Amino acid sequence: MPDTPSIDMEQWVCPAPLRDAPNIVMGHGGGGAMSAELIEHLFLPAFGSAADAGMGDSAVIEVGDVRLAFSTDSFVVKPLVFPGGTIGDLAVNGTVNDLAMSGATPMVLSTAFILEEGTALDDIARVAHAVGTAALAAGVKLVTGDTKVVDTGHGDGIYLNTSGIGLIDPGVDIRPQRAAPGDVVIVSGEIGVHGVAVMSCREGLEFATSIASDTAPLNGLVAAMIGTGADLHALRDPTRGGMSATLNEIAKAAGVGVALEETALPVPPGVRDACGLLGLDPLFVANEGKLVAFVAPEDADRVLAAMRAHPLGARAAVIGRCVGEHPGMVVARTALGGTRVVDLPIGEQLPRIC
Amino acid sequence: MPDTPSIDMEQWVCPAPLRDAPNIVMGHGGGGAMSAELIEHLFLPAFGSAADAGMGDSAVIEVGDVRLAFSTDSFVVKPLVFPGGTIGDLAVNGTVNDLAMSGATPMVLSTAFILEEGTALDDIARVAHAVGTAALAAGVKLVTGDTKVVDTGHGDGIYLNTSGIGLIDPGVDIRPQRAAPGDVVIVSGEIGVHGVAVMSCREGLEFATSIASDTAPLNGLVAAMIGTGADLHALRDPTRGGMSATLNEIAKAAGVGVALEETALPVPPGVRDACGLLGLDPLFVANEGKLVAFVAPEDADRVLAAMRAHPLGARAAVIGRCVGEHPGMVVARTALGGTRVVDLPIGEQLPRIC
Repeated sequence: MPDTPSIDMEQWVCPAPLRDAPNIVMGHGGGGAMSAELIEHLFLPAFGSAADAGMGDSAVIEVGDVRLAFSTDSFVVKPLVFPGGTIGDLAVNGTVNDLAMSGATPMVLSTAFILEEGTALDDIARVAHAVGTAALAAGVKLVTGDTKVVDTGHGDGIYLNTSGIGLIDPGVDIRPQRAAPGDVVIVSGEIGVHGVAVMSCREGLEFATSIASDTAPLNGLVAAMIGTGADLHALRDPTRGGMSATLNEIAKAAGVGVALEETALPVPPGVRDACGLLGLDPLFVANEGKLVAFVAPEDADRVLAAMRAHPLGARAAVIGRCVGEHPGMVVARTALGGTRVVDLPIGEQLPRIC
Repeated sequence: MPDTPSIDMEQWVCPAPLRDAPNIVMGHGGGGAMSAELIEHLFLPAFGSAADAGMGDSAVIEVGDVRLAFSTDSFVVKPLVFPGGTIGDLAVNGTVNDLAMSGATPMVLSTAFILEEGTALDDIARVAHAVGTAALAAGVKLVTGDTKVVDTGHGDGIYLNTSGIGLIDPGVDIRPQRAAPGDVVIVSGEIGVHGVAVMSCREGLEFATSIASDTAPLNGLVAAMIGTGADLHALRDPTRGGMSATLNEIAKAAGVGVALEETALPVPPGVRDACGLLGLDPLFVANEGKLVAFVAPEDADRVLAAMRAHPLGARAAVIGRCVGEHPGMVVARTALGGTRVVDLPIGEQLPRIC
């Protein structure tokens, strides 16, 4: 190394999952507790003062009186083509949605491909076509890109990074920290769909299901919600780690509790069956075309109405409340009337879901 | 696939390198003719109307009266640590430099890591520390990020994407298309250094050299050049494909010729020796801390003086002229007084140099 790093690895006080493993394991990429620990205990100390405190899914940048959202995501989903989508549309929608969750109108995307030697040009063209089609549908322009090639056995066909910039209108202030006790928690539709669709076609796991990924651009839905003039406090798309990871993140960021009504969660039969078969909790399964909104209670009805009037929010439902009790925790009231804590997942149920 | 792609692969008229290979080969990632063909004949048709015509190294976005530069690059350099740098500082400097080449002041970067299962946390921490140190040195903030993990045998330790946003001051208009006959062509220092440094430690290739990578952030040097008030027409950092790829790109973009004086090229002895040993042309070898400037002739002297007064431009030299003859071509006058065409490299001399 050119210089000695200033983090002394010996002095780390790592939480159990990091302490037990000196090496990266799949769970570090799952968007759950292990991912959070990697960021908090490795990346942020190593980046030092160059890192902005947040380093969240999307950053807000102020340039003069213009406010921009900026986000990045690499996609390593396996397989490249799955029921309902491909890595191409997933990558476009994923970054479009990260931008939309801060209330921004997504404008431009970059695409950076890491191609494995030997990948068929036809496969790359089809994925690139899916990128173009998804960008057109989301109303964003592809303005810059990069292509790298790695040797056979050092990639997996295609890895695709998309980064994007969106414009935040004056007066819009949507972020996890604004969630407040009393807020109504709304989900835009059925949960667990993307994760089950990808699982259903993974080697060793194939099972019959009619479930197709919900990958979709949510910027139009968010625009409709903002258009109501309601006070939207927080928006988030529950991707890796599912609803559970997203709700826990918001609860921690805002120092509030979340009280879910388990019976109100829209879990489609195909997801319920697959989760039963595989022993999974639908709250932990990834979504790629859903959002969770924390809305001031007096505005909840009109936001819900606006969501249901949009094709991507037709099945929107109130699933709980933000509370002052148990700050930082998510608690679900079960069908039997008991309560259970909905933890942040540790690693991930199935790697490389996005 | 969810829908039939609208590009008919049968109808392609691919140039020879693509036509002969139905699959991706290492040369497609080399930044030369094969990379250009992949973009022109595969990505742009597949992206369709979602793609902005340019899709260059860096895009210019206008938001109100603010002009931004936006750029992305994935880094897959092998090995992760090489004489003079690591993948971490290389990734920061690479995107900082792409932004600076459009005259922008780099502001913020994103970092997206693709980690291979089994990679030592210590190695990741050291690379992340190099990222933080380089960002601090370049004056950019790390504001958002992403981490994915892929299975052992589907990565190579660390792949790292950086994307960035810079601010372009009013009145600054620097782009390849502005290169014009009469322009003086200046390089900021010795060429071929990064490529030789990486080659010297690659398995099967190790040779003794004191050459260390020139990876460095060039935004300070560019600011000094802009500060002279000179009319800078085009700037570019000659990375993959070396000086040859960069000069050919500018010549094609502007429809001008470039006439080089081969004896004026600053090739350090270590690079000359290594290139002799390996049968390489220094003009084709990658740089990561150099720039080429096309400057209006009346301004050339003061730009050169400003460059030489900056630590990263101390060895700046005039290497040729932009001419009206042989548009789209680069021609070098050799030491013996003859001339030779300096072609765009086809693939790459050594893969995964950045």
